[in-house]
Amino acid sequence: MNKTLLQELRQGIIPEWLNQLAEKEEISLNNLVDNILKGEAVVLGHRTNRGPMVVGKGVKTKVNANIGASTLTSNLETELRKLKAALKAKADAVMDLSLAENIKEIRKKILASSPVPVGTVPIYEEATLARTKRGATVRLDADEFFTVIEDQMKDGVDFVTVHCGVTKRLVEKLSEKPRLAGIVSRGGAITAAYIKHTGNENPLYEYYDRLLDIAEKYDCVLSLGDGMRPGAINDASDFFEVGEQEILGELQKRAFERGVMTMIEGPGHVPLHLVAESVKRIKALTNNAPLYLLGPLVTDIAPGYDHITSAIGAAVAGMSGADFICYVTPSEHLGLPSEQDVFDGVIASRIAAHAADITKGLESAIKWDEELSIARRDLDWDRQIALSIDPEKARRIRKERSGEGACTMCGEYCVFLVLKDVEEINADLVKK
Amino acid sequence: MNKTLLQELRQGIIPEWLNQLAEKEEISLNNLVDNILKGEAVVLGHRTNRGPMVVGKGVKTKVNANIGASTLTSNLETELRKLKAALKAKADAVMDLSLAENIKEIRKKILASSPVPVGTVPIYEEATLARTKRGATVRLDADEFFTVIEDQMKDGVDFVTVHCGVTKRLVEKLSEKPRLAGIVSRGGAITAAYIKHTGNENPLYEYYDRLLDIAEKYDCVLSLGDGMRPGAINDASDFFEVGEQEILGELQKRAFERGVMTMIEGPGHVPLHLVAESVKRIKALTNNAPLYLLGPLVTDIAPGYDHITSAIGAAVAGMSGADFICYVTPSEHLGLPSEQDVFDGVIASRIAAHAADITKGLESAIKWDEELSIARRDLDWDRQIALSIDPEKARRIRKERSGEGACTMCGEYCVFLVLKDVEEINADLVKK
Repeated sequence: MNKTLLQELRQGIIPEWLNQLAEKEEISLNNLVDNILKGEAVVLGHRTNRGPMVVGKGVKTKVNANIGASTLTSNLETELRKLKAALKAKADAVMDLSLAENIKEIRKKILASSPVPVGTVPIYEEATLARTKRGATVRLDADEFFTVIEDQMKDGVDFVTVHCGVTKRLVEKLSEKPRLAGIVSRGGAITAAYIKHTGNENPLYEYYDRLLDIAEKYDCVLSLGDGMRPGAINDASDFFEVGEQEILGELQKRAFERGVMTMIEGPGHVPLHLVAESVKRIKALTNNAPLYLLGPLVTDIAPGYDHITSAIGAAVAGMSGADFICYVTPSEHLGLPSEQDVFDGVIASRIAAHAADITKGLESAIKWDEELSIARRDLDWDRQIALSIDPEKARRIRKERSGEGACTMCGEYCVFLVLKDVEEINADLVKK
Repeated sequence: MNKTLLQELRQGIIPEWLNQLAEKEEISLNNLVDNILKGEAVVLGHRTNRGPMVVGKGVKTKVNANIGASTLTSNLETELRKLKAALKAKADAVMDLSLAENIKEIRKKILASSPVPVGTVPIYEEATLARTKRGATVRLDADEFFTVIEDQMKDGVDFVTVHCGVTKRLVEKLSEKPRLAGIVSRGGAITAAYIKHTGNENPLYEYYDRLLDIAEKYDCVLSLGDGMRPGAINDASDFFEVGEQEILGELQKRAFERGVMTMIEGPGHVPLHLVAESVKRIKALTNNAPLYLLGPLVTDIAPGYDHITSAIGAAVAGMSGADFICYVTPSEHLGLPSEQDVFDGVIASRIAAHAADITKGLESAIKWDEELSIARRDLDWDRQIALSIDPEKARRIRKERSGEGACTMCGEYCVFLVLKDVEEINADLVKK
């Protein structure tokens, strides 16, 4: 069996491509290797043609876009257009979250079409099998589930979300310690329903070593899912969220010891004053493994604008140490995202990730702002627009409302023109 | 001369309407009066039919929308439509920032049309007079300027931004300590240019008592402008920003002693890791006066999306103690906002303000999230949409992509439906 990257690094074998990766990420090779060896950074897509891409300590905060069909809408062509929208907005990874009968077909096509790492949630495929073959989503079959996982890794999936921390013990506690929004993770809900229905333990927890065997074989990154994540800010940092995180910390350790790279998934809905402490707590409970956050949304009241509620949470989370941001689109809580929603969701998350990268002191991030502001000061519109996160939109707004030189906002009273009235001031005011 | 509200309260005279205001704001009358008496809260619009509205300690974080024409575009009708858009999105106040020849006409019409407090920046009118009568923006006339201010207050303006802290001493330092983006406040730039051009002191600083006389006469709230605010994150918390804040602290104290209610304006462009400390520093330097923030934008690289970059900054600033958020629209840095930009800007700022209010422990804010999440959990779409910050948009997205019961995001695998498969779970999972 081939060694995993982690196993190779432990033996002092450093693949050549890590050099380029380190250079691209503005980190020394030593530090990059060291962070991977500590389990604080993971590499996605290094065994496929969709990577390598690194998530974790010392590198840029990354952004993932979820795409995928549901049973009620969408199809392969639409989802491929959404993939394009995500890539146009420069997502660092995508997840195919299809939960529909043609799930395999969609996955294979997305894997074939994506130049960035692709993740999946295998329990979705297992749930469709349970539903279509055995009549109910809760009728999961443990053996079949592991086969599904292996099939997906064989197909070349770069990372999988596995809700290993939704244990029988936690599910049983649900009746004692109710929460406002219950379980809102689809994988978490399906797993909890299975446990309640059968009285069995979560197979991904009970047979975790079997999962590790498969992940090791394909050197696939495990993303330990947060099936108990809060679905309302009222439920944030509660018994179930923290209880699951404690379990994920133990499981991360076991995976890491085996040489399987692992990320931790995090919430969800978190009021702003708990975001920083949540990130720090999760990192502490999970051995500083790379943290992959969904949002967090800092309020529940803005369906239609959850790309904004989550950008607020993600920026603060990123500043506090989160490494990988799963986007949220404007249509979250209302419907499957459109192509435009996908684009807008990635941009909002990238703004949050970039705001965080500035606080992390990443030189290229800081330089980007400097260069744009110099172009702005100099009224160099072409350069300002070229440096914008979405040049197309910036150009469109400017064109719709352009003046000559100054923009229509201030017109002849543009600060940069007013100050030109007094030449000596202008010379003083700006760094040459 | 009539007493100002602050002077009345100091004499133990408590106007009847303060009771309703306290009730509306979920604060005890005692605390409200106390906060005003300490200068930590101010009331806008109490002498006109557009208030009273309170900004400061212990009450909801408020949102202002800037409207107004520029020399290059827009007209009265357009600006009145923008006023409507701001009100539809539930702005708590508007500022007429017109910098055009028909500035008086626009102001009077906006004052007559707005049910919420209206602010202005009198130096804009003085600048148009300087330009049209004397040929150059920098040819301000001190006497004329004070007449403009008094005229505006006589017209019934509820608050005015006055850039009193742009002093000769600070402007002279600009050549020694250059900054990346220079001065980006229009009022600040005009004042600095005037100082450089004439060698005179800023008249609003030199004759500050004259300004206080007028403000006292009309009991108009002074908003001490941040003419030296950073226009690039690179310039945040620099010598000029902090130097001006020190001056504003002294001026706030003098106004407060005179019985004139005063707010402090703040930046601007601030990297995320400096937002909380900036708010705390400004509050410390300015006697905990209500803080009125523009943004702050946490990155410079997203023209077209500055409602998002500023929502991130505003939420964190609000959590750290900011009281009043001036919106930023998607067209900031590119052109005068459209009606849709105005609407989107107010909503983004309201999301930030609400996220902050949750952290401030405001009961009605917390309850709003709870109620919406209960409706969401119960798949009560009508109620979820009615409780949304923008029901129209939420309804539109839902309608475009609706399924029956569950939304198209998860379809038949909706967590709330999956769990219904197992009735007992459903009973356990949610708080009744």
